[in-house]
Amino acid sequence: MIETKIKQIVRDVNDFPKPGIVFKDITPILKDAVLCNAIVAALADQLSEIKVDVVAGIESRGFLFGLSLANYLGVPFVPMRKAGKLPYKTVQHSYDLEYGSATLEIHEDAFLPGQNVLIHDDLLATGGTVIAASRLIEKLGAVVAGYSFIIALDFLNGRDRLLEFSPNNYALASY
Amino acid sequence: MIETKIKQIVRDVNDFPKPGIVFKDITPILKDAVLCNAIVAALADQLSEIKVDVVAGIESRGFLFGLSLANYLGVPFVPMRKAGKLPYKTVQHSYDLEYGSATLEIHEDAFLPGQNVLIHDDLLATGGTVIAASRLIEKLGAVVAGYSFIIALDFLNGRDRLLEFSPNNYALASY
Repeated sequence: MIETKIKQIVRDVNDFPKPGIVFKDITPILKDAVLCNAIVAALADQLSEIKVDVVAGIESRGFLFGLSLANYLGVPFVPMRKAGKLPYKTVQHSYDLEYGSATLEIHEDAFLPGQNVLIHDDLLATGGTVIAASRLIEKLGAVVAGYSFIIALDFLNGRDRLLEFSPNNYALASY
Repeated sequence: MIETKIKQIVRDVNDFPKPGIVFKDITPILKDAVLCNAIVAALADQLSEIKVDVVAGIESRGFLFGLSLANYLGVPFVPMRKAGKLPYKTVQHSYDLEYGSATLEIHEDAFLPGQNVLIHDDLLATGGTVIAASRLIEKLGAVVAGYSFIIALDFLNGRDRLLEFSPNNYALASY
């Protein structure tokens, strides 16, 4: 089972980014090319029931498997970035994070109206970032098709908050 | 030719990130899954003469094709990140950038001693960032096997500065 393998290899780092937080470090996964390829295939398998026109990946760790997933599915990849990083005309949304606040940006020509956009990030915590991503997608006239994560921290109840946008959320390993 | 295709699709954005700079926007490439897959294969083809044990990708855009390239080659991927982002114990190097200054970090257990590390980023400009990456790799007792870029801005002479570390540097499209 890929969930077992992921849980074996992910490294818990205590007190990062601040005291009391146990951070799930995915860098050991990235060292295992066989597992990485299996993860991309497993992420795609979970999406077999929904229509995905575009994968949007969230900077920075959502860029890792996000592009691979889009390429595997044969659909466009769109990067959603922190403020000031995207060179062309952007729309942005500011939001509160578990560890502070942030602004997410996207190119204004990222989507065609009505496209079904899958949001990918490596890990779902409280959901603040992907909710901001969802608002940006809707602001551009596209549709949130669902959410795809490698890891979900279900004890933070992020999945409940995503139901406002889509009933489809997937993770390969849940805690 | 993949170089022609890349040059056709890359978008020039004037005056980003500051007046007088013409920024090469790769986001249109990311929308073309067929081209993305061809880029990964072409990046790998360029490396056929050198030994690559690990691919190190530079945050954030180096994460996009860096992981795919490592997975395609069947070798580990290591992220090199801006300061404060990596959760485990790190070593870091500060450096001057074309547009300011920055600090690059890497996990102290990123490499085994003597491993041949390919540095990947989307674009080579003056080379400041990848030189900092090179110094980190050497600090950890590994070897710079070479450099792999999608785009090189040869008018900035970055390639000359890389010769201090390795004679092997590759790009799919040069300006």
